[in-house]
Amino acid sequence: MLLVQKYGGTSVGDLERIQNVAKRVLESKKPHDKVVVVVSAMSGETDKLLGYALHFDPLPDPREVDMILSSGERVTSALLAIALQTMGARAISLSGRNAGIYTDANHTKAHIEHIDTTRIHALLDDGFIVIVAGFQGVDSKGDVTTLGRGGSDLSAVALAGALRADLCEIYTDVEGVFTTDPRIEPRAKKIDRISYDEMLELASMGAKVLLNRSVELAKKLGVDLITRSTFSKDPGTLITKEENIMEQPIISGIALDKNQARVSMVGVEDKPGIASEIFGKLAEANISVDMIVQTNGYDGKTDLDFTIPKTELELAKNVLANFQNSVEKIDYDSNSAKVSIVGVGMKSHTGVASKVFGTLAKEHINIMMISTSEIKISLLIDIKYAELAIRSLHHVFELDS
Amino acid sequence: MLLVQKYGGTSVGDLERIQNVAKRVLESKKPHDKVVVVVSAMSGETDKLLGYALHFDPLPDPREVDMILSSGERVTSALLAIALQTMGARAISLSGRNAGIYTDANHTKAHIEHIDTTRIHALLDDGFIVIVAGFQGVDSKGDVTTLGRGGSDLSAVALAGALRADLCEIYTDVEGVFTTDPRIEPRAKKIDRISYDEMLELASMGAKVLLNRSVELAKKLGVDLITRSTFSKDPGTLITKEENIMEQPIISGIALDKNQARVSMVGVEDKPGIASEIFGKLAEANISVDMIVQTNGYDGKTDLDFTIPKTELELAKNVLANFQNSVEKIDYDSNSAKVSIVGVGMKSHTGVASKVFGTLAKEHINIMMISTSEIKISLLIDIKYAELAIRSLHHVFELDS
Repeated sequence: MLLVQKYGGTSVGDLERIQNVAKRVLESKKPHDKVVVVVSAMSGETDKLLGYALHFDPLPDPREVDMILSSGERVTSALLAIALQTMGARAISLSGRNAGIYTDANHTKAHIEHIDTTRIHALLDDGFIVIVAGFQGVDSKGDVTTLGRGGSDLSAVALAGALRADLCEIYTDVEGVFTTDPRIEPRAKKIDRISYDEMLELASMGAKVLLNRSVELAKKLGVDLITRSTFSKDPGTLITKEENIMEQPIISGIALDKNQARVSMVGVEDKPGIASEIFGKLAEANISVDMIVQTNGYDGKTDLDFTIPKTELELAKNVLANFQNSVEKIDYDSNSAKVSIVGVGMKSHTGVASKVFGTLAKEHINIMMISTSEIKISLLIDIKYAELAIRSLHHVFELDS
Repeated sequence: MLLVQKYGGTSVGDLERIQNVAKRVLESKKPHDKVVVVVSAMSGETDKLLGYALHFDPLPDPREVDMILSSGERVTSALLAIALQTMGARAISLSGRNAGIYTDANHTKAHIEHIDTTRIHALLDDGFIVIVAGFQGVDSKGDVTTLGRGGSDLSAVALAGALRADLCEIYTDVEGVFTTDPRIEPRAKKIDRISYDEMLELASMGAKVLLNRSVELAKKLGVDLITRSTFSKDPGTLITKEENIMEQPIISGIALDKNQARVSMVGVEDKPGIASEIFGKLAEANISVDMIVQTNGYDGKTDLDFTIPKTELELAKNVLANFQNSVEKIDYDSNSAKVSIVGVGMKSHTGVASKVFGTLAKEHINIMMISTSEIKISLLIDIKYAELAIRSLHHVFELDS
C-alpha cells in the first residue's frame, strides 16, 4: 500500500501533538506500506507570520508573503521527521520544492502544475517515511509559492494522484462527514462512504471538513480520500467514486448555510440584457451569487430574487445602487438561511422534492426560494426555522437510523 | 558602488527594528548604489526553533535541523523586503538557494562552495534592493544547509567577494573594534582601520565582533569589511589589507581571554613522540590547545606547560589520566588569563616585548607563559591581575591618546 496522510494545523498544534502524530503514523503503517505524510504549519503559526507582514503593509507583496508563510510547514515537517527518527523510523522532511511540487507563479493562491515524484519514489524505495511540507510549491523562477486556503489538503491530494497512492487520508479534528451538523441534530450520524459530487454539494453548503478545491482535485485524479480525526480511532468517511458505493441511500446529508442574504429586485424592466448587466456588475465586484429565481411580474416587468453571502451585503448594496432607476424596489433580507438536501440516490428516486415540501409544510415553514440540481435540493427559508427544518428532514429521510 | 550590508539578529530583533533597518538601508544608499542586504533571524528565533528540535532529540538529525533553522532568516528577509517596499523602494527577498549560494552537504556547519550571482546581478540591474536570507545555502541534492555560528556574516562576505562588491558592512550592536574591552578600560578607543591579521588575532582573543571564519574569508577574497552599529551613525571599523592602512600604530589593540586554563605536566619522560602523543589524544577529544611551552627538567625529563579552554578542563583531565605513569605530576590551574598585545607595527619596531615585560614588572605581575607571533605577544598571567595588566599596557602603548 502507498498511503498519503495529511495532518492539519490542530493535529500538529504543539510539540506533544507532533509526537502523537509520529506515533499515529507508525501505528497506521504496516511493515511494507510506503507512507508520505503532508503537514500543515502548527496552528496559529501562519496567522502569526501573516500578522508580521501586515504590520508593515495591509496589502503586502504576495511573493514576500509566500516566502514568510511557507516557513511554517517547513518547520513542522522537519520536527515530525525528528520525532519519527527518535522512534526508530527512517524519516526525512521535504520542502514543497524538494518534493517536486511545481506551481504557476500566482503567489498566495498558486495552482499545482505538475509534480516530479522522482525523489519521493527513491526515498520510499529506500524505506523512508517521507514528510512533505504542505501548502507550498515552487514556480518556474525557483521562487516559493503557496496554494491558498486548504493548501495542505491540496498538496496531499495532488501527491496522492501523482504517486498513484492507494489512499489519501486527511486528518483533522473531526471524525468525518456527518449527515448533518451534530450541534443541530445530535442524532446526526457519521457517513461511512460518500461520492465526490455529494461531498462537493455538502462542503459548499457549510460542512467544513474539506474545501471543494481538494475534493474536485481528488475527483479529477480519481484519488480515494478519507477524512478522519487525529484524536480518535474512528475510520472516518471515505470520499470516492459513485460506483464504489454499494448501498446508496436516497439522501446522504443535509447542510445548512446561514451566510445567505436574499436580494429581491421587484419590477425590473424586462429588457434584454438587464439581468446579465446586474450579475455582471456583481461579478466584477467579486460578489458570488448563489440561488437565482426570476418570475414574471406585471406590466411586462419581472421580479429577480437571488442570494449572496451576508458578508458581501454592504458591497452589493453599493453595486446595486446603480440600478435604482431600472427597478421599482430593491429589498434586502439577511434573516434567511439555506438548507440543502444532498444525495445521489435522488436521481433514481422520485418524490424526494414532494417529501421535502410536505415535511416543511407540516412544520409551517415557508419556502422563499428553491433551487435544485441532479443530486441536491436547496431551500431558502427564514433563519429562525433553520434548525427545526434540518431536524425534521433528518428524521423524515431516516438519516438518524 | 556595490554594497553588501549585513544586519544581525539584534538589529532585526523585532518589527520596529526591521523598520529601522529599512530606513537605514535607504539612508545609506546613494541613488546609483546597488545594495545587497543579508539578514539574520530575529534574535531569539533560532534558539526557539532549535529548542523545538531538541525537545524530541538531544542530537537531532542535522539535515532536519537545517530545514528548521533556515526558516528564521527567510522570514526576516521577506519582512525587510516588505518594509522597504512600503517606503517606495523596489526590494525582493531571496533565500540562500535563490541567491545561488551552493554549499557542501555538511549540515549545520556547511561550507560555501560557490555562488552563482546571475540572479542577484539581474535584480540589481533592474534596480532592486536584494535581501538575502543569511546563514544558509543549498547542497548538490537541493537540500537546504546552514553555515554554523556567524553564518550570516559568512554569507555577506562570500556574497561581497562573488559580486566584487566595493564594501561589506557588518551591522551589529557595537560600534566597531576597540583598542581593548571598554568595560575594562573606559578610555579604550574605537579603531578606525585595522588589518585582517590584527583582527584575526584580536577576535580569537575574545573581541567578539566578528568570528574569525568571516575575517579569514574576507582576507582570502580581498573584501573590505566594515563592522559598525545599527544603532549609531559612527562609521565603524574598516578591516582591510595591511597596505591600505597608512599610519600604522605599533600596537592596535589588547585582548583578554579569561577562558584559558593552564596544564603543567612536570617530569615528562623525554622519549621521542611523547609530546605528540599527548597533543594527539587531546586533539582526538576535540580539545584545542593554545599556548605551549616546553622546558628541560632534570634527569633527562622535561616539563610541558600548555593552555586549554577552561570549559574543556574536565574532559582534558580524563584524557591526560592515561599519561599518569609517564609523568611525575600534572597540575591544573584555572586561575589564569591570557592578555594579548596585537599590532602589525611590531614587525618593524623592536623593543615591544621589553616594554611589555617592563610594564608588568612595575606592577609586580608575574608572567606564567609567553607566546609570540609576528604581530602578537600573548602572556598568561594570574587572572586577578588581568584588568590591571590591560589598563597599564593600554596606557603605556598610548592607545588611549
